[in-house]
Amino acid sequence: MPSMFLVLEGIDGSGKSTQAKLLAEYIQKELKKQVLVVREPGGTELGEKLRSILLDSSEDLAPETEMFLFMAARSHLARTRILPALNQGQVVLSDRFIWSSAVYQGIVAGNDPREILDIGRIAAPGLRITKTFLLDIDPGAGFSRVKAPNRMEAKGLDFQARVRSGFLELARRPDSKIVVIDGQGSIAEVHERIVKSLPARGWSTCSSL
Amino acid sequence: MPSMFLVLEGIDGSGKSTQAKLLAEYIQKELKKQVLVVREPGGTELGEKLRSILLDSSEDLAPETEMFLFMAARSHLARTRILPALNQGQVVLSDRFIWSSAVYQGIVAGNDPREILDIGRIAAPGLRITKTFLLDIDPGAGFSRVKAPNRMEAKGLDFQARVRSGFLELARRPDSKIVVIDGQGSIAEVHERIVKSLPARGWSTCSSL
Repeated sequence: MPSMFLVLEGIDGSGKSTQAKLLAEYIQKELKKQVLVVREPGGTELGEKLRSILLDSSEDLAPETEMFLFMAARSHLARTRILPALNQGQVVLSDRFIWSSAVYQGIVAGNDPREILDIGRIAAPGLRITKTFLLDIDPGAGFSRVKAPNRMEAKGLDFQARVRSGFLELARRPDSKIVVIDGQGSIAEVHERIVKSLPARGWSTCSSL
Repeated sequence: MPSMFLVLEGIDGSGKSTQAKLLAEYIQKELKKQVLVVREPGGTELGEKLRSILLDSSEDLAPETEMFLFMAARSHLARTRILPALNQGQVVLSDRFIWSSAVYQGIVAGNDPREILDIGRIAAPGLRITKTFLLDIDPGAGFSRVKAPNRMEAKGLDFQARVRSGFLELARRPDSKIVVIDGQGSIAEVHERIVKSLPARGWSTCSSL
C-alpha cells in the first residue's frame, strides 16, 4: 500500500472542513506523517474553475451535467495531486469524494449510484479509498450552521434530509468502507471520535514510489 | 420521429463549420424547415465556459478529464437546446458530437470507444443522431487551413492523422449511421456531396411535441 487516502463525507454544515483540518494536524503531529488536504470540487486550477461554475451558476444544471463536472474535477485532482502525493508516501485527506456524487447525482437524483461509482473508476483509475468518515448530523443542525448558502446548499431542509439518508444507505453496504461518525456535539468530541476510528495499521513512515 | 438531428464530424480544418452554415441555409430555403445550428463544446453559457477551459487551459488535461468536460457540455446542450428544438419539429445540426469524444478521448487516447459511447447515453438520454457526415480530408490539407491553432489543434500532423483514422474506423461500423463525405475540393463541391447524402425521407413539416 503506497499510503492512506481518507475521505470525509456528510451533508452541508456537518463539519467536514473543520474536521479535515483537525485530523490533518493530528496525523502530522501524532503520527508524524505528511498530509495533503484537498477538497472537492477544487484543489487544482481546473477544479476551482469548475467549483465556481457548480456553486454559482445562474443556469439550472441537470444532475447528470453536474455529475460530469464533478467527475472532470475529480479526474484532474486524482491524477495531478492525490495519486502523486500517495505515491510519495503522504496521507491524503479529501473533503468529499466519489460518495458525494453517488448520493447527490445518484440516489437523490433518482440515478443508479452503481453507475456513478463505475464512472468514478474512469475518473480516478487505481485510486482506492482507505476509509471514509461520514459525519452524520441532524439536517436541521447542519442547516443552521450554513451562514451564506451557495446554489447547492440553498436546496432546503428536505433536500438535506434526503442526502443524509442517501449517505447512510451507502454506509450500510459492507464493501463501502464508510464508517458513520456521530457529528453532534463539540468540535473536539467529534474529532476524538474520528481519531478513534482511524485505521489501526498502515502508518509506517516508509515512503514507497 | 420528432425531427432530424444531423451531425458534422471531421478533423480540424475539414470544413465542418463552413459546411454546417451552408447546409442550414439549404435546409431552410429548399426544404422549408427551421434549423438550429450548434457546436460542441459550446452552444450554452456553460458550454462556452467549458470550451474556453478545454481550448485555452494552461494546465495539461488527461484525455479522461477532457472527456468529462465534453460530456458536461454535451449533457447541458442536449437537454436545454437540442432536445427542445427537435421536439418543436426543428432540424438540429451539430458541429461535432459524441463521435468526437469516441475518437479523441477514445481511440486516439487508447480508451475503449464503446465505454465513451455508453457514457454519452447518460449525457444525452433519448437523443438519437439521424445521420452523421464525416468530412474526410487529408490531414496535411486540414492542417494548412487552421490559421491560429488552439490547444487541441496544435497537436501536430501525426495526431490529426490518428484522429482521421479513428473517425474512419467508427464509420465502418454498420450501426454508426456515419456517411463519409469526400472533403477535398471547393466548398460548393463538398456542399453538393452533403446535400446528395441527406436523408431522403423524414422532411415533413409537421411538428410533433
